[in-house]
Amino acid sequence: MLIDGIPKKALESSNDFTVTIIDQTLLPHKLEYIKLENLNDCIKAIKDMWIRGAPLIGVTVAYGMYFAIKDNPSDKNIIKSYKLLLNTRPTAVDLKWALDNILNKTLKIKQKERLSYTWKFSRELEANSIKQCSKIGDYGLEIIKSKMVQGETFNILTHCNAGWLACVDWGTALSPIYKAFNEGLDIHVWVDETRPRSQGASLTTWELSKHGVSNTLIVDNAGGHLMQNGKVNMCIVGSDRTASNGDVCNKIGTYMKALCAYDNNIPFYVALPESSIDFNLKSGVNKIEIEERSNKEVTHIRGINSLGELSSIKIVPDMVKSHNPGFDVTPARLVTKLITDKGICNANSKSISELFKNN
Amino acid sequence: MLIDGIPKKALESSNDFTVTIIDQTLLPHKLEYIKLENLNDCIKAIKDMWIRGAPLIGVTVAYGMYFAIKDNPSDKNIIKSYKLLLNTRPTAVDLKWALDNILNKTLKIKQKERLSYTWKFSRELEANSIKQCSKIGDYGLEIIKSKMVQGETFNILTHCNAGWLACVDWGTALSPIYKAFNEGLDIHVWVDETRPRSQGASLTTWELSKHGVSNTLIVDNAGGHLMQNGKVNMCIVGSDRTASNGDVCNKIGTYMKALCAYDNNIPFYVALPESSIDFNLKSGVNKIEIEERSNKEVTHIRGINSLGELSSIKIVPDMVKSHNPGFDVTPARLVTKLITDKGICNANSKSISELFKNN
Repeated sequence: MLIDGIPKKALESSNDFTVTIIDQTLLPHKLEYIKLENLNDCIKAIKDMWIRGAPLIGVTVAYGMYFAIKDNPSDKNIIKSYKLLLNTRPTAVDLKWALDNILNKTLKIKQKERLSYTWKFSRELEANSIKQCSKIGDYGLEIIKSKMVQGETFNILTHCNAGWLACVDWGTALSPIYKAFNEGLDIHVWVDETRPRSQGASLTTWELSKHGVSNTLIVDNAGGHLMQNGKVNMCIVGSDRTASNGDVCNKIGTYMKALCAYDNNIPFYVALPESSIDFNLKSGVNKIEIEERSNKEVTHIRGINSLGELSSIKIVPDMVKSHNPGFDVTPARLVTKLITDKGICNANSKSISELFKNN
Repeated sequence: MLIDGIPKKALESSNDFTVTIIDQTLLPHKLEYIKLENLNDCIKAIKDMWIRGAPLIGVTVAYGMYFAIKDNPSDKNIIKSYKLLLNTRPTAVDLKWALDNILNKTLKIKQKERLSYTWKFSRELEANSIKQCSKIGDYGLEIIKSKMVQGETFNILTHCNAGWLACVDWGTALSPIYKAFNEGLDIHVWVDETRPRSQGASLTTWELSKHGVSNTLIVDNAGGHLMQNGKVNMCIVGSDRTASNGDVCNKIGTYMKALCAYDNNIPFYVALPESSIDFNLKSGVNKIEIEERSNKEVTHIRGINSLGELSSIKIVPDMVKSHNPGFDVTPARLVTKLITDKGICNANSKSISELFKNN
């Protein structure tokens, strides 16, 4: 998508075997690029959330394996690196999918072939991610078009960041929005702040605004009121992991937005690539291990101080205890449709398995 | 309630005609008292949210009228001051109730009697508020006791601050919690941060901790996940305005918590004094004017910086637009019971009018 008119991606590899990412922890205040040069860079990039988002994590761990093999292509090092990368973020299923693919294949081929295989795999994963997200956008665009009323602004609510910053390009939830904008449709996006890390405030408003899409930031508490008062035409969110019955594990707070949409007869869509579906997981509610993140995410907030410097403040005294689950699970019954790179389906086992049976 | 073992109130008047409040905008970082000395102090205290919470606002406007009449007891000044105080916060109904009472009475009596009448009225309002909140606590305590299981911690989720800081003492939603704690019951409170002003993080964690009640801060997004996973036994919130059918207007985000509780069969209670019921309002959903507050509440956050100073940071660049509704309306169908100073009733017109018909 565009940053002030110039096309950019969240991760860019080039023919000289370099991989560059944006340090998303500095957004929206600073735009800085980081070169990933070894396995540790990739682990740090994920753990410290320089990059985040299930699809982008998937591509990054692939390059992590590439750097690991470049350093040492032995079975032992591949298995060790696999484990290190697998443990960076426990919830995202794309991560495991990419790692399993590389592990299984590289252990079967000669050591000297492993590096070039992994580079090629990673590049393809990167390119495919863009294609998949673009397809999600095409399918989602049809839904938006079918629901728009001539002469009226179409209001879409989204939670967290499932935009191009979470993928390589286009995004999942935001891809249909970019497609609609690029076609000149009159859309407006309500952006949930998404505490505790505020990815909505920091990333979604930034990437939408930079591309030119009209958007308004709201606190996570406000969506229900807007939906109750006819200010939201549809919701679209992403998914970190989708169970085979359509239960959706996504950023903490998604479940409550789905409940609200359901209570107000507003369609609630989840946009996701096939790789985020965990076909081995029958259902998600109370079945998916939820990542417990640092309390500091709750108690400290970063922004620009009165001197114009990026700094962190503590919002509560040290005596305050806090608890910080990173994701929640939205039951399939609250999901109107899944928008995938392979097409649109209902959030149930039958519809999902029908859509993906030939893939 | 207690601050480090010493009994304190959110507003204290004394026989020498002085009124002292806590500057709640500095909490939880600093505890500072402010003396209210004239009408403007009272207006500023409400508008700048040195004090907030429907019951406490009600008492403060009464003293505002006292100071106005002390300055000038004419009809003209009483009417002018009434209007100024009425416009400080549009949502709270306690405010109008107190002001109407003073206006109607003082205009009927001699000028020289107005000051002493208003002082007496305000003092009684203050004392009654404490009694009402204590009664709410007694009724709520019975509910807690009836639901507790021997040997298990009882987990209560609350939103915003409906504690003694929102009233004069005890609180509304927190009053049953203090009563339970004072009886030695094993309770724990999940405290919603309550963006944008973060009254949960700033005030509720502070007042509960200072009194000794076990509590844990969570972001507003986390409650759904906790409820879905059996970590919440009941919810209690306050009300800024209650329609005669039981619809509840409370801090933005309350509606979503009620939806979650309903979806997980968790009882959702609203604790309120009679004065917060608007008997003239048949229903609340889409009927109550919702206060639009400053965008700065969304885009700026206050806390302690690395130098230990209280300071404000800007979390998004100036290009980001935001929208900030202060309250939402929870439909009566999601409310298990209303806990009032007159007893417990169902959230419907029949039950409410039966409970209050003799009052």
